[in-house]
Amino acid sequence: MRVYISDLKDHVGKTVALKGWVYNHRSSGKIKFLLLRDGTGICQCVYFRGECDEAAFEGFEKLSQEAHVQVTGVVKAEPRSPGGYEISAQQLEILGTSVDYPISPKEHGPDFLLNNRHLWMRSKKQHAVIRVRARIVKAIRDFFDGRGFTLTDAPIFTPNACEGTSTLFQTKYFDEQAFLSQSGQLYMEATAAAFGKVYCFGPTFRAEKSKTRRHLIEFWMVEPEVAFNDLYDNMELAEQFVEYIVQTAVRECAEELKVLERNTDALTKVIAPFPRLHYKEAAEMILKENPAFINGDDFGAPDEAIVSSKFDKPVFVHHFPSAVKAFYMKEDPNEAGYSMSCDLLASEGYGEIIGGGQREDSYETLVRKIEEHKLNLKDFEWYLDLRKYGTFQHAGFGLGVERAVSWVCGIQHIRETIPFPRLYGRNYP
Amino acid sequence: MRVYISDLKDHVGKTVALKGWVYNHRSSGKIKFLLLRDGTGICQCVYFRGECDEAAFEGFEKLSQEAHVQVTGVVKAEPRSPGGYEISAQQLEILGTSVDYPISPKEHGPDFLLNNRHLWMRSKKQHAVIRVRARIVKAIRDFFDGRGFTLTDAPIFTPNACEGTSTLFQTKYFDEQAFLSQSGQLYMEATAAAFGKVYCFGPTFRAEKSKTRRHLIEFWMVEPEVAFNDLYDNMELAEQFVEYIVQTAVRECAEELKVLERNTDALTKVIAPFPRLHYKEAAEMILKENPAFINGDDFGAPDEAIVSSKFDKPVFVHHFPSAVKAFYMKEDPNEAGYSMSCDLLASEGYGEIIGGGQREDSYETLVRKIEEHKLNLKDFEWYLDLRKYGTFQHAGFGLGVERAVSWVCGIQHIRETIPFPRLYGRNYP
Repeated sequence: MRVYISDLKDHVGKTVALKGWVYNHRSSGKIKFLLLRDGTGICQCVYFRGECDEAAFEGFEKLSQEAHVQVTGVVKAEPRSPGGYEISAQQLEILGTSVDYPISPKEHGPDFLLNNRHLWMRSKKQHAVIRVRARIVKAIRDFFDGRGFTLTDAPIFTPNACEGTSTLFQTKYFDEQAFLSQSGQLYMEATAAAFGKVYCFGPTFRAEKSKTRRHLIEFWMVEPEVAFNDLYDNMELAEQFVEYIVQTAVRECAEELKVLERNTDALTKVIAPFPRLHYKEAAEMILKENPAFINGDDFGAPDEAIVSSKFDKPVFVHHFPSAVKAFYMKEDPNEAGYSMSCDLLASEGYGEIIGGGQREDSYETLVRKIEEHKLNLKDFEWYLDLRKYGTFQHAGFGLGVERAVSWVCGIQHIRETIPFPRLYGRNYP
Repeated sequence: MRVYISDLKDHVGKTVALKGWVYNHRSSGKIKFLLLRDGTGICQCVYFRGECDEAAFEGFEKLSQEAHVQVTGVVKAEPRSPGGYEISAQQLEILGTSVDYPISPKEHGPDFLLNNRHLWMRSKKQHAVIRVRARIVKAIRDFFDGRGFTLTDAPIFTPNACEGTSTLFQTKYFDEQAFLSQSGQLYMEATAAAFGKVYCFGPTFRAEKSKTRRHLIEFWMVEPEVAFNDLYDNMELAEQFVEYIVQTAVRECAEELKVLERNTDALTKVIAPFPRLHYKEAAEMILKENPAFINGDDFGAPDEAIVSSKFDKPVFVHHFPSAVKAFYMKEDPNEAGYSMSCDLLASEGYGEIIGGGQREDSYETLVRKIEEHKLNLKDFEWYLDLRKYGTFQHAGFGLGVERAVSWVCGIQHIRETIPFPRLYGRNYP
């Protein structure tokens, strides 16, 4: 009976067939060890001369890294083995050879590894990161699905360049031009009026000509939007959400985080509520350590690091100056020039992972803002309709999945947090 | 205390505030009825002259469709009311006016409705369809997450035109050209070797210049791929999967399907196993009713209808001629000219919803196939690596989410199954 390594616990004492790839193999006289990898786990298969087929014992010498093989043998509980089980192997069949597998245990440069991303993902650490990513994606969806949110997917093709054209990808859409979505938010404001609590979760695109550790050209973003919420409700939702996904990953990805040698002490402290700073308080904090910072500007990565280093939890900064936030962010009626926006800075210096806030809900103010930002009113006709027909208080935020995965995994470069990263200058494999 | 309509059951006998939009309102002497919609439900609010604020009673006259209001009153269980609860209302506050809301109960043409999609989704039927969609998406993810599959998102930007350029969207990717993904399958073959059982689930793009009821330019597709599976394992997985998502929707979306007047008798029969026809058997069946059909061709929609009308369950057709399937589909070694492919035709004439099969795993055959299809070998270097380093038997399939939602909801036109449809000639709102 053919089984996966992850299911061995149900077959102790039975003879099974495993298919998989040679992860490692070594001989020691009358005994040979094969570490088999099948994607669901790694299992040690032990061949004893005299106890296994003679052909299997001889065939062992032909094995090479990543050859595809079938092993037949008896499942034994073995606490010292990886995964807790091993196979007393009888047979060995090579089903697919592997000559000169390019990724060896030696050090490779990042370009070489990225060119071989389709193979690199078979390595233990890359495998672990993508498993954590999958678990975080599930946690994100479970959080919203379990709280009465309706998934309302935003379109990728959009007719207008809503936030300026400098970082937009453009395509010919039959006889027109279309742009690739940078955010589903405006669409979520429409669906929030139809479903109350909504989210979208899909790929978004930014044509940024920079090679940083924190930017991807194509990345996944989850964007909840909630009818009737204000800025403070929004921060409360965001902190419960971040606590949920981080604690779920810590609890359920213990094995993967161990492979990644991630010390999770700091993550276990990610429990709501999180500290909240007004922009002015944060700016003061930054000025003490970075006198070059200009009060009123957006934060750079070093500024974020100064603020977040003061706390052992993620920290909100709210009320950014309206001038550094998008046109749709509501200005605080009690504090001219400051917006009802909030960013969340991750702990341990991982920087901004959430941006959001309360949206402008006055038709007249929104028209004025669109004009001030020199955007085309005609492009926003449908968006303005939401303020014309029963305008309502609402707020939401966006979380970039890859940044969250970097933080949880303790990875310095975001390129390892997505199966096939798209970077400036890289669209392969 | 402000609550959502979906949470009224927890507040019976209490005074609450509801925010929402005017769905309907009518007066009858000393009593006025307001149907309030907040996205999570619809609730009847009753104003009695003498029992409510006089201002509220008078203010009622200013209500209009989709005005945003706050109602304050006492929650009562009322089995005759929509949702089972109603509000003995005291106060009424208009928070956002709505003058001449464009969508009235009268009939509107599809173009008008699609131009107002951002508002149209507030209507009862559209609301129900998108709720069913969200539930099906969750069922799809739960099915795979619960069976040891790892989510491995495929990239949208791809370097090559892998299946011909006629229906591809192209974009400038810095100094190169990039294409928008039509399928994540090739990438899933790579991740299947790393994780065993994988799936991707994201938007895909086809620049089809046709206006049919069954095509979208941008649609969501889920694509599982399983290491070591053959064609028959693949059909077994697909039928369990389809049973799961259909039965989950029937069970958990009863209310929405009632709004859509969907008779679910046929859906309750969607229980695995499903009948399986060899292409030759299906072709014979078609020829009896459509003598113009050419044996060896792919099926048109009327041909699919002929086959599926013979069964009260979805039906597999397998072993399509290799000539009508993609280059990566494995030819059956025991049946020259026929591929180890399978399509699943939905019941009730809804046509193909799944396409898949076993993949070619021989390096030499794959090279020959790529050359026969006049594709560029250089473009497939990484894909061929999967056959060079431990090639393995594997199979998978793709399901278009919108077609599945159409079928479950009993909707004739696919454009209503996605929040913001992209069609030939339509990229708005």
